[in-house]
Amino acid sequence: MAAATAAQNETYDLITRNLQEVLGGDIIRSILTEGRTLKCYWGTAPTGRPHIAYFGPLTKIADFLRAGVEVTILLADVHAFLDNMKAPLELVAHRVKYYEYVLRAVFKAIPVPIDRLRFVVGSSYQLTKEYNLDNYRLCATVTEHDAKKAGAEVVKQVASPLLSGLLYPGLQALDEEYLKCDFQFGGVDQRKIFTYAELYLPKLGYKKRAHLMNGMLPGLTGAKMSSSDPSSKIDFLDPPASLKKKLKQAFCEEGNVENNALLAFVKAVLMPISSLRLETQDCEFKSFAEEGAPAGTVFSIPRRDQTTLHYVEYAPMEEDFKNKLIHPGDLKAVVTTVLSQLLEPVQKEFETTQEWQEVTALAYPSDVPAKVVKPKKEKAKGKNKGRTPAAGDEQAARLTVQDATDAPTELVNERAEKNEEE
Amino acid sequence: MAAATAAQNETYDLITRNLQEVLGGDIIRSILTEGRTLKCYWGTAPTGRPHIAYFGPLTKIADFLRAGVEVTILLADVHAFLDNMKAPLELVAHRVKYYEYVLRAVFKAIPVPIDRLRFVVGSSYQLTKEYNLDNYRLCATVTEHDAKKAGAEVVKQVASPLLSGLLYPGLQALDEEYLKCDFQFGGVDQRKIFTYAELYLPKLGYKKRAHLMNGMLPGLTGAKMSSSDPSSKIDFLDPPASLKKKLKQAFCEEGNVENNALLAFVKAVLMPISSLRLETQDCEFKSFAEEGAPAGTVFSIPRRDQTTLHYVEYAPMEEDFKNKLIHPGDLKAVVTTVLSQLLEPVQKEFETTQEWQEVTALAYPSDVPAKVVKPKKEKAKGKNKGRTPAAGDEQAARLTVQDATDAPTELVNERAEKNEEE
Repeated sequence: MAAATAAQNETYDLITRNLQEVLGGDIIRSILTEGRTLKCYWGTAPTGRPHIAYFGPLTKIADFLRAGVEVTILLADVHAFLDNMKAPLELVAHRVKYYEYVLRAVFKAIPVPIDRLRFVVGSSYQLTKEYNLDNYRLCATVTEHDAKKAGAEVVKQVASPLLSGLLYPGLQALDEEYLKCDFQFGGVDQRKIFTYAELYLPKLGYKKRAHLMNGMLPGLTGAKMSSSDPSSKIDFLDPPASLKKKLKQAFCEEGNVENNALLAFVKAVLMPISSLRLETQDCEFKSFAEEGAPAGTVFSIPRRDQTTLHYVEYAPMEEDFKNKLIHPGDLKAVVTTVLSQLLEPVQKEFETTQEWQEVTALAYPSDVPAKVVKPKKEKAKGKNKGRTPAAGDEQAARLTVQDATDAPTELVNERAEKNEEE
Repeated sequence: MAAATAAQNETYDLITRNLQEVLGGDIIRSILTEGRTLKCYWGTAPTGRPHIAYFGPLTKIADFLRAGVEVTILLADVHAFLDNMKAPLELVAHRVKYYEYVLRAVFKAIPVPIDRLRFVVGSSYQLTKEYNLDNYRLCATVTEHDAKKAGAEVVKQVASPLLSGLLYPGLQALDEEYLKCDFQFGGVDQRKIFTYAELYLPKLGYKKRAHLMNGMLPGLTGAKMSSSDPSSKIDFLDPPASLKKKLKQAFCEEGNVENNALLAFVKAVLMPISSLRLETQDCEFKSFAEEGAPAGTVFSIPRRDQTTLHYVEYAPMEEDFKNKLIHPGDLKAVVTTVLSQLLEPVQKEFETTQEWQEVTALAYPSDVPAKVVKPKKEKAKGKNKGRTPAAGDEQAARLTVQDATDAPTELVNERAEKNEEE
């Protein structure tokens, strides 16, 4: 193999930065050295309304797109249908459209070029003869034991698990082949599914893919305070007042940097987006550095004492919070402001796109945008964080995208469970 | 519901006679009363060469056809392919043709009208969008536990069971809907799969079907003597000399009516066929009653003392064997003669049908007809009698069709295991 050029190394670094884990980095390096365009796949099941935790993977996908990677977003409608068979396929079809509208608008708001982004609907190929024969071949190759182990982190663990839970990991593996990707991207909760794909695709004669994993982002509004409050999930279409009210409830203890979802969100989403805006020539959106801040600033925090702190990276900010130089109220205030600013173009697009509004009414007939109030569901036993959850749980697909770079897995699992009722 | 007429009762009796169990007899009665044509489905996976134990289900299917039932024989090529992935789909396609040739020829030899018989190849509908979506829906409805329980009798029980074993029972249930049958027919080893179908099809919005079950027919050549002898399986194309040699090895102890596969074969196959020939006007084939036998005789046994015993039904023959009035050598001799006579038209058709001969060479390239000598396989742990077995076992589909009316299940299981190596 030819030695990688400096530019190739830079591209590799952009693709893999801020991830919690990379499996098969050599596969990616080798394609870069070849000079071929890399292809990535990320999947989400269009169930409930996507909320702002989706910023986690989308911010990382922005890196891929900037690095010239062709990104496929799989809108897994078949999974969504199976997830909640009470939602008929035609309802899911509206949700597919809703997801595409939201995700496109968010990419534009970050902003990131989307000419290398494509959306694929699962049913466009997952019900074909070839795919199903491959599914059967896979089922005649994998053991029950391995299929169960693969889904352990993302399939709801209940007393009487459904057979579908054993199929999902295999389908997700086949998607890599059918979407012709070089690597699949997802949260670290997908790790067992990813290693399963690495083991079994070659047994069907298909090549092994690389797997890039984001850390898990805890629920922004804080698990402890929100689990009994159905209105605590922040929707992309929530207006500033609603945002402010919800963020006020977030768990954010003075000096405590553990379990602090606001800090995690600043690190994984707001700072990278601010950097990107600063690096983008003639960017139409403002960075999150205050006007007149020192050069290199990516995030500024105005404080109640009228002074402002400026940061060029995350670590010093965390240190300052730990040392109580940043008050929780100041952090909540700046995140509210900056998030409103980030969501503004998304909401503007919604307001000016009649078809999106119509699709929203069809996709979520009982939801009033910005007030996603739903009855509390019965708590499921065990975990449920996959995009391929057991039937009947609309929350699950959302939980997949709770990403926080470097968030310890143990903490994440704990929080994810608590967040189930968000 | 209108009361059944005498003719309808007679039809019902013909459909259900000699079965070991009927589930949903009311469904069948109700359709007969309506005056609608009944539809039946029986499935077999075209793996290894079908052997004469297939006479068990085929003899019963002859009853259905005579009763005016529309019979669909499913040639489950997808299952066959998955069963032994070493056999590529194109090889399976040749086996599908081979099975159809053999089965058609056997029905003609019985003889039974086949204008109401249709053959359907599994891949013609099992890989469609609708079927697969239903498969997913089913998998999102059934528990792992129920799927496992359903396959317990027919899926090979090994230390590391394959995921496919959990899918097969559901696919077999869906086949009932897609083949639009009123009842499915099979061996009693399919009982758990049948009750699973009865439970789950209605949950998908499909109607519950009736299930008719044949008893299991032990291997004709006798498990005890044949398990180490690969040539003991009798092929439909075995010439009389080969037949004689193989039957000579059959386990048949003087006075012992238990574990006696020859008696079971006479009862379940030869006597019903003989009756049918006697009842058929201008039948081109002879019955198995000797010329000049008393009226009503369906089976005659010439003995070594030059006398002949004549039977109008099975029970007295079993009694005579128990009382040592029939010597095992006499029983073997008459079965050899009668079976040669029964197979003669099948073999004649093979000899005069060039396409069948060509298909045989393509379907079983290493088999020389009439000398099915194969290396002994490693003995699998546990049972394996389904038409939907684990990968790699060509024998399994054959074992499904070991039927013997009223043969005790316990005995059958024991024998089936022993027969695995036939």
